[in-house]
Amino acid sequence: MKMLINSPETVVADALRGLAAAHPELDVDVDRGVVVRRDARDGGRVGLVSGGGSGHEPLHAGFVGYGMLSAACPGEVFTSPVPDQMLRAAQAVEAGQGVLFVVKNYTGDVLNFQMAAELAEDDGVRVEQVLVNDDVAVTDSLYTAGRRGTGATLFVEKIAGAAAEEGAPLEQVAALARRVNESSRTFGVALSACSTPAKGGPTFDLPDGEMELGVGIHGEPGRERRAMMPAREIAEVAVGAVLEELVEVAPADAPVLALVNGMGATPLLELYGFHAEVVRLLEARGVAVARALVGNYVTSLDMAGCSVTLCRADAETLRLWDAPVQTAALRWGR
Amino acid sequence: MKMLINSPETVVADALRGLAAAHPELDVDVDRGVVVRRDARDGGRVGLVSGGGSGHEPLHAGFVGYGMLSAACPGEVFTSPVPDQMLRAAQAVEAGQGVLFVVKNYTGDVLNFQMAAELAEDDGVRVEQVLVNDDVAVTDSLYTAGRRGTGATLFVEKIAGAAAEEGAPLEQVAALARRVNESSRTFGVALSACSTPAKGGPTFDLPDGEMELGVGIHGEPGRERRAMMPAREIAEVAVGAVLEELVEVAPADAPVLALVNGMGATPLLELYGFHAEVVRLLEARGVAVARALVGNYVTSLDMAGCSVTLCRADAETLRLWDAPVQTAALRWGR
Repeated sequence: MKMLINSPETVVADALRGLAAAHPELDVDVDRGVVVRRDARDGGRVGLVSGGGSGHEPLHAGFVGYGMLSAACPGEVFTSPVPDQMLRAAQAVEAGQGVLFVVKNYTGDVLNFQMAAELAEDDGVRVEQVLVNDDVAVTDSLYTAGRRGTGATLFVEKIAGAAAEEGAPLEQVAALARRVNESSRTFGVALSACSTPAKGGPTFDLPDGEMELGVGIHGEPGRERRAMMPAREIAEVAVGAVLEELVEVAPADAPVLALVNGMGATPLLELYGFHAEVVRLLEARGVAVARALVGNYVTSLDMAGCSVTLCRADAETLRLWDAPVQTAALRWGR
Repeated sequence: MKMLINSPETVVADALRGLAAAHPELDVDVDRGVVVRRDARDGGRVGLVSGGGSGHEPLHAGFVGYGMLSAACPGEVFTSPVPDQMLRAAQAVEAGQGVLFVVKNYTGDVLNFQMAAELAEDDGVRVEQVLVNDDVAVTDSLYTAGRRGTGATLFVEKIAGAAAEEGAPLEQVAALARRVNESSRTFGVALSACSTPAKGGPTFDLPDGEMELGVGIHGEPGRERRAMMPAREIAEVAVGAVLEELVEVAPADAPVLALVNGMGATPLLELYGFHAEVVRLLEARGVAVARALVGNYVTSLDMAGCSVTLCRADAETLRLWDAPVQTAALRWGR
């Protein structure tokens, strides 16, 4: 597998050097693996910190900036960052109002963020945590007890980030983040496996003509293998699976935020075509799409495929979704 | 080759339906293949129209909006749009100040835009054209006499679009667009071939362990095949090739706009690492990077690889680069 890298060992550090060069508004500590918005402590707001294994870019470092994350901690590829990274991030963004950790539900991340929270509390930083677990495909998986955390992370970080930017207190930002997570569900599909630099080739076998329904963002197995289907039928499976679990969160007639997210190697041309099918299916079921986002946001290196995330919205979450955001990967309204 | 599509015949129309659903600020004529910003005629500005074969998304439709293109005409995959599309686009955006066609240098596009320009002039619309031909890899290619038009298209559309938004007259917008094109050079590298929906598989053979230096955005042959190299060595070839031809445009000590552009399937993690190498090389040669953009902007479906575009900037082009832009794929400052 050919990759545009210097060596598997330096992939993450090299990317952080590039991030620093391209985004002078970010304070990038390449050696320690911490990315902080330079104005994180101005204004005395709640700090929003996230992180996780690398390989899902632009998540999370691409979402650091005005109206979204205060800091991100990238781990090695598909490997949790260590507690010291989250602790440093918390200290760098703490402005007297406490810090919210946004944690995707993978065992390593959960343990390390928990340890970092305890260390930060010892250091006098008030910490709340929100666990993102939106992936309906499977309960319990390769690296996860319970549902995996995937596309909803973007909704949680954007909406909670907007609230923090407005000066909401920690408890309110945390409660909002939990509400967004509980209102969100995701289903992913892989048309090809991804290749990690360390392995140098595909992380799993996906035969010609088959796809993985319900795949995780590290290539974890989903619900089933099936022969390739047209986009409209794949959309039916994905939207059906998401809506089935989305009805648990009231109200069932609320409009949704929709994310049609590319896993990395699927052309934008195809993602937009897929989005058309998703919208058609939602409209047929009486679900109004209040806002939509189509593109590569929570990726799996060079995996081909996509995921659909829906989030039941209300007036407050819609307003915060629309609020200005200025990050490397998500920008509007300012 | 597995694709997230309904059928090869409907790929472009399906994507346009999705674009329309995701971006209500765009007026998308799916049947005729014309994408227009709804406020194109407000304010009596020069209209900026571009287009070309599909498969390079977000180029061009993703650049339609405030401060950039007034309209885009997507052709079938890797196939020029027809003159009727450009004519309709010109008519839709004409507000008494004339229209500039931004044309990438491929034989089909050049002929069809020329015919559309004549039809539009017959219809009373004043038309200027700028030919984008920035790719230094080869002179004459599979679909091109002279240099191919690639990454610089983004610089031309952004900077000329900002001037049009400010109310600059047609001759001035056209002269600026030509100046940006002449100040820009690009070199691309493929690590894998792309697959078109019509062919259903790779458009050319690229053996394991080899790469194509100087590839075109349709997979056209470049300068040479070579065994895979580390990112830092690939960057040396690309930056060297670009700088060699960039010295032709004065002044040689001007800072540059840098675009490290993904071809589609190369992870953002790798693109940022590659960007670090590009910046390192430029600094070593005394070339200051005034602004940088890293991501998938001028793609080749699912090709793995990247291109480097540099544009010698001056105070005016820098100011217009920084000016607000609000499109599906490029947004800042507003």
